[in-house]
Amino acid sequence: MKDRENDIHNFHIKNILKKLEEKDQDAMLVANFNNIHYLSGYLSTSFAFLIIKENPIIFVSEMDLENARNTSSIDILKYESFDKIIEYLKEEEIRNLAIESDLTANVYQKFKEFNLTISDAISTERMIKSDEEINKIIKATEIAHKSLIELDVRSKQEEGKEEWECAYELGYLMRRNGAGVESFDTIFASGAISSLPHSTPRQHALETPVLVDYGCKFEGYCSDTTRTFLYTERQEEISDIVLEAHDKAIDAVKAGVKACEVDKVARDIIAEYGYGDKFIHSTGHSLGLDIHESPTLSFRDKTVLENNMVVTIEPGIYLEGEFGIRIEDMVLVDKKGKLIGDLPQIL
Amino acid sequence: MKDRENDIHNFHIKNILKKLEEKDQDAMLVANFNNIHYLSGYLSTSFAFLIIKENPIIFVSEMDLENARNTSSIDILKYESFDKIIEYLKEEEIRNLAIESDLTANVYQKFKEFNLTISDAISTERMIKSDEEINKIIKATEIAHKSLIELDVRSKQEEGKEEWECAYELGYLMRRNGAGVESFDTIFASGAISSLPHSTPRQHALETPVLVDYGCKFEGYCSDTTRTFLYTERQEEISDIVLEAHDKAIDAVKAGVKACEVDKVARDIIAEYGYGDKFIHSTGHSLGLDIHESPTLSFRDKTVLENNMVVTIEPGIYLEGEFGIRIEDMVLVDKKGKLIGDLPQIL
Repeated sequence: MKDRENDIHNFHIKNILKKLEEKDQDAMLVANFNNIHYLSGYLSTSFAFLIIKENPIIFVSEMDLENARNTSSIDILKYESFDKIIEYLKEEEIRNLAIESDLTANVYQKFKEFNLTISDAISTERMIKSDEEINKIIKATEIAHKSLIELDVRSKQEEGKEEWECAYELGYLMRRNGAGVESFDTIFASGAISSLPHSTPRQHALETPVLVDYGCKFEGYCSDTTRTFLYTERQEEISDIVLEAHDKAIDAVKAGVKACEVDKVARDIIAEYGYGDKFIHSTGHSLGLDIHESPTLSFRDKTVLENNMVVTIEPGIYLEGEFGIRIEDMVLVDKKGKLIGDLPQIL
Repeated sequence: MKDRENDIHNFHIKNILKKLEEKDQDAMLVANFNNIHYLSGYLSTSFAFLIIKENPIIFVSEMDLENARNTSSIDILKYESFDKIIEYLKEEEIRNLAIESDLTANVYQKFKEFNLTISDAISTERMIKSDEEINKIIKATEIAHKSLIELDVRSKQEEGKEEWECAYELGYLMRRNGAGVESFDTIFASGAISSLPHSTPRQHALETPVLVDYGCKFEGYCSDTTRTFLYTERQEEISDIVLEAHDKAIDAVKAGVKACEVDKVARDIIAEYGYGDKFIHSTGHSLGLDIHESPTLSFRDKTVLENNMVVTIEPGIYLEGEFGIRIEDMVLVDKKGKLIGDLPQIL
């Protein structure tokens, strides 16, 4: 198993090196924890710097050394100072240094004597999921879906439970069912507050409708699902529009189609019904070790979808002062889009 | 109340403008959510860009507009594109643009036509807490301490509960007692794994000792406490050393002393007993809206402590393959250090 993991890490490193070479980059500086995890198996808890080159190396903070030694497939050195890393890069005759788009300004400035260029080599590599990665995402989704059914939101609403309690119990159920942590802070928004796409669970008894956007991680890989529990004809009417946009967008997902084209399918349907200005975010995003990865299903993103990408489809209509409805599922890109999981649409 | 909040925000903005002027900065670009929250009352859930200048303005993503309108004391504009922000900055004749140390490289590069300089104006402003901020930190700490006592770790250990269940129940108790979310992922590390300073709670029955590092937020402000539950004479012996370092370091905290001097007090005591190389992290850190703020109580940080800073004191000894012991409390800097909360040291 350890050998197989090492092979996968070597495979990714080789692909990334090829992309760096094509752009005349000598090496890449990697500080993002999930990128280092993806490439080495080691998940930092403080800070770390991976140098991707022929013989890659990770500089690890002293407090993480024991953990890194036990989990990394890439050689490690104890981090002592930025100066030591810079010295090391010079000894290796590195001039053109690729960096990640989320490298922080303070680190950026430490390395400014090198020729720094943002590279998407790692995020591009992470776009296409392996079978192992897809299986982890499916497993996370199954745990999440099972847990939402066990929670039984309608009974919680009848019992007058508060938003935070429900969010918390859902987190408990996901862990009891075998997940790690939540993929992100659970959204449990009821009544008028559901018109905020990202509200925080309140100490307030559940009103209606109840919008639940949630997910869990299985071996580091995220799930992401939204269901809105409906209580009135008006809510059902709006939900039908969102569901039509959701279903047609899923039908539009397939290898060869651009991300922005899928967004357009959902957006056009909602606009036809006169709610175009109430759909205030993009149609979806990719996910994996991170809850938001590239590409994004937005009008801006022209990335062509490829087999084994995993994306969310999550149209919504938000009526300020009234309520919001969102329906979200995850889709595996293939010749046609394959829905992940089988949670009923209307609960 | 709203007026008073606006006054506080204006006060901070004025202080920051003064610091910017001293360094010939025309304005500051702010993207960090907690910085924007601190200065405007608005907490973003997606992305936002605050421009600090005579008449500050926040560019807010469409999906957050409703929330921003309801909570921000600073005027808002809908974010449309980086180009529009750049156009706006040019119209305002801004050339020298201060940035935060954690601004990401992709944003950094978008604004590179300006003269960009990292500024610590906001983090310096945030170092000194107001009475309101201190009261929130105290309240968060009281909730956290009460919750740990209610959890009753020794009975959980006897019942054979698993690490993740205990971490989860502690989170539940903190929320039930009035907190928001956890300050960070709770560490509930038992047995040999406690030698990793930052381990993740496992699906594994509690062994001994049990190290619990945890906190919660009250109105955005963090608490941070660690207790290690001891079960053997060997554990008590090591804990006594850590406790001596902890107590003496707290005694050393006062206005006028350097951060690194407090670190040295704890480090020297642990070294005297022969465990210097087993104390593998710094003695503490500041906290507030973020769990880690400036200054850090490390050998590197020469910042002079001032009244109304809040810092943690958290020495530890980590014996690989055996166990780890850490004891952590929060201290308000004053003429002498004032311990926050009264959770017993040995539980």
